Amino acid sequence: MLVNGEQFKTIAIMDRGFQYGDGLFETIEVRQNTPIFLEQHLQRLNNDSQRLLLPKLDFDLLRSEISELCQNAGNAVLKIIVTRGEGGRGYRQPENIEPTRVLSLHPFPDYPKNYYTDGIVARVCNARLGLNPTLSGMKHLNRLEQVLARAEWKDTAIQEGIMLDFNERVIEGTMTNLFYAKNGELFTASLNLCGIAGILRGWISEQMRVNEQDFFLDDLREADEIFVCNSIMGICGVRQIENQNFTVGEITKKLQFALESAKQKQVSYAIK
Amino acid sequence: MLVNGEQFKTIAIMDRGFQYGDGLFETIEVRQNTPIFLEQHLQRLNNDSQRLLLPKLDFDLLRSEISELCQNAGNAVLKIIVTRGEGGRGYRQPENIEPTRVLSLHPFPDYPKNYYTDGIVARVCNARLGLNPTLSGMKHLNRLEQVLARAEWKDTAIQEGIMLDFNERVIEGTMTNLFYAKNGELFTASLNLCGIAGILRGWISEQMRVNEQDFFLDDLREADEIFVCNSIMGICGVRQIENQNFTVGEITKKLQFALESAKQKQVSYAIK
Repeated sequence: MLVNGEQFKTIAIMDRGFQYGDGLFETIEVRQNTPIFLEQHLQRLNNDSQRLLLPKLDFDLLRSEISELCQNAGNAVLKIIVTRGEGGRGYRQPENIEPTRVLSLHPFPDYPKNYYTDGIVARVCNARLGLNPTLSGMKHLNRLEQVLARAEWKDTAIQEGIMLDFNERVIEGTMTNLFYAKNGELFTASLNLCGIAGILRGWISEQMRVNEQDFFLDDLREADEIFVCNSIMGICGVRQIENQNFTVGEITKKLQFALESAKQKQVSYAIK
Repeated sequence: MLVNGEQFKTIAIMDRGFQYGDGLFETIEVRQNTPIFLEQHLQRLNNDSQRLLLPKLDFDLLRSEISELCQNAGNAVLKIIVTRGEGGRGYRQPENIEPTRVLSLHPFPDYPKNYYTDGIVARVCNARLGLNPTLSGMKHLNRLEQVLARAEWKDTAIQEGIMLDFNERVIEGTMTNLFYAKNGELFTASLNLCGIAGILRGWISEQMRVNEQDFFLDDLREADEIFVCNSIMGICGVRQIENQNFTVGEITKKLQFALESAKQKQVSYAIK
């Protein structure tokens, strides 16, 4: 782990990341020492840190620390946390504050192959996502909604929980974005009031036309295919939601294939 | 500072308080070594930790640490943070997790006397509180809404920002609860969808009848008196909101007096 470039396993108690969740994070797949979709992750970090009015980040420094940490990482998960830094008891941010950056490597989770071929099982969470346009879309450190939603089940046969918002719209999974296909068209929730704008969600909308719109559980029940995605898990079809079965369909498979190619291309490019 | 009873100024990076804001806090006035309204703070901590499904806290241990820290504190601010503890990359909480408790003392802020006699100046924040019944009322560590609201102004002549929710209802200040009086009756926002249930807010509703109901800026503009309160600042009349003037009225003064008596009683009782 690197905290502001130095090897630490701890952070100051007065860091605003700890005091208020006052910061952002990125979770990045590292494959053969190569951080996948790194540019997109750094771009989001930059955009979100402007929205949060965080002090300016030194992206050159961040890049060099990422290289350092990943050079022998093999296959791993790289987590980047950026906070507003240390300062003050109270919500007001002090002048001339220095952001804190924390880079850590974690083992890459060993997802079973059948998550990709047969799909995963999902349930519908009771906890609702709150509506908050000021924070929606951002991958910030205020994640109690997801923690509480994930605490609703312990059954290891269920891999993901689908989260609705306060108005019963389907938004995303606890740790994934969610898409469904109907009559050859792809749909996902608009994130103007809640939800996290995932990197793969953005990548998918560059591969094919995606309708960002409101939808409900009834729409999902009539879907031809459903899949979830995040930067670590990739794209997984959903084969079951609350006793209703679905098939991993052609659109899901096509996107899985394209994603794998894109990742391999990035790895080969990095090795050259 | 005490972290799980030992003197540390740092916390593990993998603590879920830092990773996800997965925890709670209390901010307590210490007067002549006596934590004011301690029972009420510990009661809220207990209630909220059950709502958050935190691992069970050892309140006897917590009490003894509070005594240890406060015995020579004089007048100070005691902050207690309780998190779900260390564990896991991912929202799922591991089994057998141990909560982390962090106790810290801070200088008591030197509020000018005229905050209490003449009242404070408030503005109306642009940032809106999100609607989230799962989290509303709790003093949890996900405080980005307040951080962003407090970042809206730097003018030191303004002491507090009034926050509306997503439906334009007036809820609270960035760091206080808000009340208004009209025709001898007292009103405050219901916190079923957002807001923090402050200890003084609870104490006030034990002193006199409070109507918890929805209200809007127009209602506030026609108020006879307005005041804000929190455990550190106490009760302060609001003398100005966005160019409209108000007077610190009799209800505010009566409650200020009763609060001061209640605090002095607790201090005398502790000293005996």
